Formats: sequence, C-alpha cells, structure tokens
Amino acid sequence: MKAWAYLSRVAEPPCAELAELLRCVGAVEAAERIRRGEVGPTLAEHTAARREIESATADLELLHRRGGRLVTPEDDEWPVLAFTAFDGAALRARRRGGPPLVLWVIGPARLDEVADRAAAVVGTRAATAYGQRIAADFSAGLAEHEVTVVSGGAYGIDGAAHRAALAADGQTVAVLAGGIDVLYPAGHSALLHRIGGSGLLVSEYPPGVRPARHRFLARNRLLAALSSATVVVEAGLRSGAANTAAWARALGRVVCAVPGPVTSMASAGCHVLLRNGAELVTRADEIVEIIGRAGEFAKEPPHPSSPLDGLSDIERQVYEALPARGARSPDEIAVSSGLPPADVLGPLAMLEIAGLAQRQDGRWRLVRRGRSSRDGPEATQSR
Amino acid sequence: MKAWAYLSRVAEPPCAELAELLRCVGAVEAAERIRRGEVGPTLAEHTAARREIESATADLELLHRRGGRLVTPEDDEWPVLAFTAFDGAALRARRRGGPPLVLWVIGPARLDEVADRAAAVVGTRAATAYGQRIAADFSAGLAEHEVTVVSGGAYGIDGAAHRAALAADGQTVAVLAGGIDVLYPAGHSALLHRIGGSGLLVSEYPPGVRPARHRFLARNRLLAALSSATVVVEAGLRSGAANTAAWARALGRVVCAVPGPVTSMASAGCHVLLRNGAELVTRADEIVEIIGRAGEFAKEPPHPSSPLDGLSDIERQVYEALPARGARSPDEIAVSSGLPPADVLGPLAMLEIAGLAQRQDGRWRLVRRGRSSRDGPEATQSR
Repeated sequence: MKAWAYLSRVAEPPCAELAELLRCVGAVEAAERIRRGEVGPTLAEHTAARREIESATADLELLHRRGGRLVTPEDDEWPVLAFTAFDGAALRARRRGGPPLVLWVIGPARLDEVADRAAAVVGTRAATAYGQRIAADFSAGLAEHEVTVVSGGAYGIDGAAHRAALAADGQTVAVLAGGIDVLYPAGHSALLHRIGGSGLLVSEYPPGVRPARHRFLARNRLLAALSSATVVVEAGLRSGAANTAAWARALGRVVCAVPGPVTSMASAGCHVLLRNGAELVTRADEIVEIIGRAGEFAKEPPHPSSPLDGLSDIERQVYEALPARGARSPDEIAVSSGLPPADVLGPLAMLEIAGLAQRQDGRWRLVRRGRSSRDGPEATQSR
Repeated sequence: MKAWAYLSRVAEPPCAELAELLRCVGAVEAAERIRRGEVGPTLAEHTAARREIESATADLELLHRRGGRLVTPEDDEWPVLAFTAFDGAALRARRRGGPPLVLWVIGPARLDEVADRAAAVVGTRAATAYGQRIAADFSAGLAEHEVTVVSGGAYGIDGAAHRAALAADGQTVAVLAGGIDVLYPAGHSALLHRIGGSGLLVSEYPPGVRPARHRFLARNRLLAALSSATVVVEAGLRSGAANTAAWARALGRVVCAVPGPVTSMASAGCHVLLRNGAELVTRADEIVEIIGRAGEFAKEPPHPSSPLDGLSDIERQVYEALPARGARSPDEIAVSSGLPPADVLGPLAMLEIAGLAQRQDGRWRLVRRGRSSRDGPEATQSR
C-alpha cells in the first residue's frame, strides 16, 4: 500500500508512462525503479521533481486517522466497469485521459456500488436561484430512486445538488480536485464532512495537494466516469461543467442539460450543449429513465383535461358551430360547420348526452358550463 | 373570379374532392356542376349544405371595398413554391392536408415574395412576460434581416411577434382562421388593421366565416407552409403551436423551439418539441441562419475574456502553482505543479512578460490584478 501511496504523489496524475510501468512490473517494483531513476526518459522527467518525496507513511496515517482508505485496482471495490471506458486508444492518447492510478476515499459507501447507479449533477458556481432549485429538485428525485448524486463540491449548483441528496437521505459523492484533507472551497468544509460521513469523498490526489486549474479539468473526467449520465443544470459559456460534459461524451456516457431562459447567461452553456446533441431534461424521472434499469420509465406529465376531450372530430366541429348565444336549427348548424345536414344530427345527440348541448323546439343551444368549457373557438388548443 | 369565390365557400376547405374536380374542369365549370348537383357522391355531400348560397358578388364587393383581393393559383403572386410541399401523397391523404383553393388577402405585400423569406413566430395565448419579450426580440431581429414574420394574430406570443415586427418597420403577415372581415380576437382588431395596412392579412375563408376550432387547425397548416421555419416561443402541453409545428415538420419545414425555465408550464410544450428533435434557438440570428441565404451565419456570442486566455496549458499549470501569498522557488513550483524543474523557467518568463508573475531574489510571486484575475483555482472555468 505504501508503494501505491508513493506512486500517487510522484507524478501528476494521470500519467500514461507511469500507468504503463505499473502494468509491466507492479506497484512495489515501479516505486523502486522510480526512486533509483531507472526509468525511461519521459517518465524520468515526469517524476524528477517529486521522486525524493517519501511521505507515503505519513499520508496513509493521515488518511486512516480521518477514517479513509486508499483504493487501488487490486481492491474489490475498484469500479472496474466504470473505468473500462478509459480503455479506448483515443482516450489514452488524450491529454490527462487515463484512468486514475488509485483513489483516496473517505466515507461508508462502496465505490463500485456507487458507480453502478449514479448521475453527475453539475453546473456553474454562479448559479441563479432557478438553477439551485432545479439542482435540488433533481437531486432529491434521484435520491428517491436510489441514484447516487455525484458532483464536485463547489459553490452553486454542486453544493445545491449535494445538500438536497443529503436532505433526502440519499447517497452523494464529491470528487475533489485536491487532497482529501484539503476541503475546498473552505466555505463547504462542513458540507464535505457530511458527505464523507454518509457517502463518499473521492480524490486521486494524495493528502495536502492543492486544487489547481488543471486538477479541476482532470477531476472532471472522474466525475464523468463514475456516472452513467452527466446532467448540466446551469453553465455559462466558459464552464467547467461543459468540460465535464465533454468527458462524459468521450467516455460514452449520456450528456443531459437543463434548459433555462435564453436571457440567462447561466443557462447559455446548457443551450450550447443542447444544440450539440445533449438530452434535454426537465425532471429527475427523465434522468432515471436514461440511466435506469430496464422498465423504469418517466411518468407522463399530467395533461390539462377538458370536457371536449372525448369528442370525435365531427362532434367538435358541430359543437363549434353552435352559437355563443341563442339557438340554431340543424340546417343552420350544417352551413356554419361545413358538414352535410344529414351528418349533424348524430353529433348533436352525442353532445346532448355529454351535457354540452341541449335541444329546444327543434333548435340547438350550448349548455353553459362556466368559462373553462368554451371561452373562444381555440380555447382547447391554448392559443 | 366569381366562380373562385363561389367555390371558396361551397365546401369547407381544404376539400380534396373539390380540388380534384377543379383540376379536371377548371373553376367556372366546377362551380356550374356543383350548382347543378352533377358531381360524385362525396363532393355532393361536402357541398350539400352550401351549394345554394350565391354570395360571390357580394363577397368580392366587400373584399374590394376593404382594399383586398382574391388570389388564385392563376395569379402571378400565388406562392407556388411554398405550396409544392403539399404535393406529397401522404399529405394529401392527411385530414385537411391539401393546399388552399384560393386565398383572400388584404395588404400591400405580395404573397410569393413573403413566402420566399419568412419565419412563423407562434406560441401560446397564455404567454408569460418572458415569452412575450422573446417573441418581440426575435421578431425585431428577423425584421432587421428582412425576414417576414408570419403569425396567427392571437393574443400572447402571436400579438407580441406582430407588434415587434411592425415597430421595427418589418413585414408581418397574419393568417386568419375566419373570414378576412372577421377580425378575431376582437381586442386585436386595431393590430390586424395595421398588419393589413403594411403587410398582409391572409385567409382561405370567404367573408363572414367565423373562426372555429377545426379552422384554427386548418389555418395552422398555412402558417407552416408560408414559412421556411416555424419558431415556437412558448407553448403549453396542449397547444395550437405544437399543431403548427407538426404541420411544419410534415411539410419539410424546420421546426424551432425556444427553451425556458423547466418550472414554467408555458415552456413545457417547447421542451417536448426539443426532446423530439426541434432546433433549439436562443437568438433571431440563429433563425436567420437556418432559413437564410447561403453565407448568413449567426454571430458567435461574445465569450467573457480573461487575462489567462492566451496562456498555454503548461503556462497555466505553472501560474496555478504560484502561491496566493508570498513567493516560491522554481523547484518548489515544479513540485506543486507536477512539472519537471527544467520545464518551469520558460513558462515563468512568459508569465512575467504577460504581467502575471514577477521575480524577486530568485523567487516568484503572483502579480495582483484585482479579483477577476485570480479568485480561486477554478476561477476561469466558472465553477
């Protein structure tokens, strides 16, 4: 385990050359060779700055004091399935495109179980009230369906997503861009502690490593990899969430985005994603359907109903031909509806049965049912 | 012309059997045969209620008094190209799926020129302030690009679209679901008069015909046919705008929809359209690009810029490794950035030139540039 901890710090992850050496000789031997400088020139360069740092013991002690564990590919809970997506040659060639070497984690959840049924809910730190509400609604809905909410622990959308999952007694995972002991942002340290207490804090960086821009970008690939779908709730045009979405797409995951007002800059990045093929989602149900097991379908939203719903087209046409005031003969109704006179009597009888029309001295009139039943000829089509 | 006016009233349009008879024997003979009842049984049924109504002369007089004209397929301005889309056998089989027989129009614009460069901007009568603003913004933008704004004259989105086009001195066309003298809704009669004064009022119904539900549905196919794209700004789940969109798709036109808050029922129909393949549009430019002549492209929206924009990835990585307070040696910077020591000096020099870092006694520090340049390691990615 100390060899893994040493390797986790010696090169900035992910490092393809280090992964290759590991595959060939195993962790203990790889660590030894790096210490002795007996590696190829590229890996020598990548490890030059840190190969003399021997903090593995102290790092592991710190981790254990905080109730954490170092998860390696040799462990049962290593999320093998989630990380097979990194196997594509195109991805390995991509900058920072490999799987993590190890993961430093704190929390009771198992990594592999988490990754089996998870959605990333991410977005801008500069979230609007709308975005925070949606993030919270979605997270609560995902929690209800036992989907783990994965996010980045940041202010704004991320925080709203984590909080709502915790409030709904759901499972939530924060993937960090620095060491697991560096709770960033500082204003979220209590929230991150709660996440580590019930779900999982995850990082590929050893203790003490500070978040940095390139680490956020590398972290985003893990957010995407651990989730079956990445849901971008709000994102500006320059957004880390768009980077996470790009990773999700590269890894073969579903990218979802939430629409918002076109006047809101906080939704502009979502609209770009939607124009480029992301799935538009409006409710947690729709995300569950996308990532869910067979047989989980989003409920149809309720349609407003109208007393005219059960009518046939011809019955409607006759109904529309009844005058707003007064009564008409069947012949007059035939003229105004454009139907043959012989065709209006049947529909009139049906309208009478439905309580929509009534006969009086051989003429027909509407039955008044309050505003909703007929406030204009296009009333039932909302324009 | 009187024969055309007679035929326009004698059957509820569109009537496939009447169109067929017209094609075979011409308008004058078709009118005579219908008067004499010398037609097939289906057409006889469709014309039974009205074949004795002889109001063509009065209808045309009323039309001319209002400065209108009856446009038939024999006229130069008949929009032949726009209506070829109705030729598909599938469409002719569809209920109310044929081209109009004639069009009653009032206004100075030419129908064929209008249809050559037009977008339908439609939506719910129950529009929100957001929807009305977007309809107005889009219409004004379309008017600027000399695109005719076609709509249905209704309250809500339609009205906002027409008004903004007029205010921008653009061309706008209202397609009505009743006679051209029946200005519906009554609250829009002044608006419709203005449209007829500068653009065009269009209807396939003769004077005096009242709007009715089935006529709105039939009217929607003309809205769609006269426009290269149909833009749904806001629509509920039961919406006439969705019917117009369905026509547009059936006619091979582009369907666009505007996203809105997922919490707004007035955008729910748009989100359904977007989930089913409609183009997401956020600005008039994007509509112009869709319907426009070759070479018209939407402008890229402005991206927020940052002093770090010009940096290479490695320069950024070094920049991020500079401490928030105090200074660091190049070796320390190598450790914290994960780069080989030999690789940090070049980037540091570039950062100095860019005014982002400064050297002091062999150590390097950030140049403070106010909050925007560095308020957190992920500052430039908005989360």
